[in-house]
Amino acid sequence: MQNRTYTADAEPGETVTVAGWVHEIRDLGGIAFLILRDTTGKIQIKFEKDEMDDELVETGLNAARESVITATGAVDEEPRAPTGVELTPDSVEVIAEADTELPLDPSGKVDAEISTRLDNRTLDLRKEEVQAIFEIRAEIQRAARETFRDLMCTEITTPKIVATGTEGGTELFPITYFGEEAFMNQSPQLFKQLMAGSNLERVFEIGPIFRAEEHNTPRHLNEATSIDFEGAFCDHHEAMDVAEAVVKSVYEAVDENCQSELEALGLAEEFEVPEGDFPRLSYEEAIERINATGELDEQLVWGDDLPTEGEHALGQDVGEHYFITDWPAEIKPFYIMDQEDDEQLSTGFDMMHPRMELVSGGQREHRYDNLIEGFEAQGLNPEDFDYYTKMFKYGMPPHAGFGLGGERLVMTLLGLDNIREAVLFPRDRQRLSP
Amino acid sequence: MQNRTYTADAEPGETVTVAGWVHEIRDLGGIAFLILRDTTGKIQIKFEKDEMDDELVETGLNAARESVITATGAVDEEPRAPTGVELTPDSVEVIAEADTELPLDPSGKVDAEISTRLDNRTLDLRKEEVQAIFEIRAEIQRAARETFRDLMCTEITTPKIVATGTEGGTELFPITYFGEEAFMNQSPQLFKQLMAGSNLERVFEIGPIFRAEEHNTPRHLNEATSIDFEGAFCDHHEAMDVAEAVVKSVYEAVDENCQSELEALGLAEEFEVPEGDFPRLSYEEAIERINATGELDEQLVWGDDLPTEGEHALGQDVGEHYFITDWPAEIKPFYIMDQEDDEQLSTGFDMMHPRMELVSGGQREHRYDNLIEGFEAQGLNPEDFDYYTKMFKYGMPPHAGFGLGGERLVMTLLGLDNIREAVLFPRDRQRLSP
Repeated sequence: MQNRTYTADAEPGETVTVAGWVHEIRDLGGIAFLILRDTTGKIQIKFEKDEMDDELVETGLNAARESVITATGAVDEEPRAPTGVELTPDSVEVIAEADTELPLDPSGKVDAEISTRLDNRTLDLRKEEVQAIFEIRAEIQRAARETFRDLMCTEITTPKIVATGTEGGTELFPITYFGEEAFMNQSPQLFKQLMAGSNLERVFEIGPIFRAEEHNTPRHLNEATSIDFEGAFCDHHEAMDVAEAVVKSVYEAVDENCQSELEALGLAEEFEVPEGDFPRLSYEEAIERINATGELDEQLVWGDDLPTEGEHALGQDVGEHYFITDWPAEIKPFYIMDQEDDEQLSTGFDMMHPRMELVSGGQREHRYDNLIEGFEAQGLNPEDFDYYTKMFKYGMPPHAGFGLGGERLVMTLLGLDNIREAVLFPRDRQRLSP
Repeated sequence: MQNRTYTADAEPGETVTVAGWVHEIRDLGGIAFLILRDTTGKIQIKFEKDEMDDELVETGLNAARESVITATGAVDEEPRAPTGVELTPDSVEVIAEADTELPLDPSGKVDAEISTRLDNRTLDLRKEEVQAIFEIRAEIQRAARETFRDLMCTEITTPKIVATGTEGGTELFPITYFGEEAFMNQSPQLFKQLMAGSNLERVFEIGPIFRAEEHNTPRHLNEATSIDFEGAFCDHHEAMDVAEAVVKSVYEAVDENCQSELEALGLAEEFEVPEGDFPRLSYEEAIERINATGELDEQLVWGDDLPTEGEHALGQDVGEHYFITDWPAEIKPFYIMDQEDDEQLSTGFDMMHPRMELVSGGQREHRYDNLIEGFEAQGLNPEDFDYYTKMFKYGMPPHAGFGLGGERLVMTLLGLDNIREAVLFPRDRQRLSP
């Protein structure tokens, strides 16, 4: 809109045109206030009924809440106004009238169930604190990209329609591709590895992944954002360094650039940028510490995967981001390399937030013969993955990488209860629309 | 890799370890050169057979081309070396031996068909000029994101699994979603509009779109990258301004940050950043100018869509990026608003590169009743789009936006013949793997 001034930029002494939604109308009798809201904030618009044109007053004060209006007038200082300024309108125009019955109250005064909110995301996102989540989500991705670029990585795009899944045929959404069977990709794993063998060497991707998991929990999504890294000539230690650098830089960026959003979420006081190196616990230490908490009914033994309650107990015990390393090789995927000096141990690692797993990664098996053996041991036919494995015959350097859950990063950074809070239009077992 | 020095950083006087691929071995008898290639460039490694350890010489010179090696030694100036320096190795280690028969020659001396190249992208991407395309593609996306942010836009992620398509049921890939019928989204159109009605106001997304089009041409893909914008309180003129700013900023960024990549592609001389405003031609002028070229067998009349040859003729005539505006309302989608003062004309616009269409956009129909009528006139049941249309009842501001073809932008910027050159792993009618 030509000549529009954002409410945050409306300075006393100026005559401006603001545009936005009717957030609230407070009618005190002779005087009434309309609070107009736009993407930058709010402004108070004053109506003095006896001194102003009747039609003007009527247009302004009869506008239903959440209608879209423009108002032109002088801006003055007014200490009693919420933002310290107020606008006295010369003209008001209703651009889009809203129904008087709203399915959701964007002022936030009336609580709504998450399903109602997700059905009405447009209205839900008129709440300051919800807007703040998505401004921060965007900043997180911006900062992650910047850090990857600083670390010599090239951003890539890998296909989402694929002929075969990364981990075989489980948990894939089938798709019909011109009469052929295909799937939506559950991870860029194989493609990013192919790029680590190219002259790009170090690559990253931030994109959608699709998992037909039946889980329907506050921390699972069937369509999610994966932040992926793969680097030639990297081992698992360096991949952990990259993961740590990315996560820290994201916290730093939010701290630096999103104070007003943190405030809207009531987090400005408590928000902390992680300091110092993330502890790197071996799997063995991890199960010992979990057992020592006494939180599990049964003691964990070597070879067990960590149950969710175990992760929680350990997270509480550690109290900060940490890595779990030196996993038993048998519980990590076959494409993760075993340690050179002890084949029982994997180079796989997880990065944990105290609340949940954020990152999974490791050094990859880059030796052709070992890879083929791995496929066979898994009961997979290596020929189905020929497009991938054959590139390992032509000079595939050692490489390592990880996948970082984009929504889990937002969720843990902001302390959200439900991962659906971190996605505009989540997809889960029940939800396919909007 | 600890202590690795990139070839581009190997300075005379230092002792370094470089790692990369055996690009070439030139054996001149008493002396031989191994050219090692990494992501930053190449370095010459010198073997003086009589003066050096036999095993060292043998390891280096017997390494098959494209094997992965590391070499440690002193770097000296050497004007006759391709990069002006050379490394005399104290040690050489073969990390991953390559087969002697390669399906593709990464030195580029032997030409390969595009299908062979796409089947072997890892090797294809060891060519400097192919690497350059994807470094530039990443820079294009970085610059586009930066420009959108400068223009007050928030980056969003919309779902790729959807219950209904944007344009009805045609050209959609069907997917089975927990037993329900769903589709892969062909455009974020409806979702970004929903966000323009939220407090985010101005949003952008760079993400995959999926179109089950049967076209199999050098400029169509079935999975592509769409660069989308939608802005509240914008009309089509402002949406055109945003599109123009993004495209120009991308050219500027490539010019500023990608000179070596342009050189690798042989484009450093001819690459030009568009100057001045992109001409905005009305549809009427466009068909007149096309007719005047005499390139078409039949003259175009009002209401005709522009045939591909017409676009080519006009592109040659205009010779720079341009817009086509004021289209007949009947050939633009129903969700594009008609012009206020002439309902025969649409607010829809296209941005054209002389070679092809890049952008399609317009002001959207934000009036609930008109929108419902539009669905019905299209033969669509508005109730199927209830999640979308109902938000138009609660204060939907006027808004406009566009979609910009990500691969077409790369293709036209670099003068590529085939859009598949701009995608790592293209998906087309025949190609589903790798």
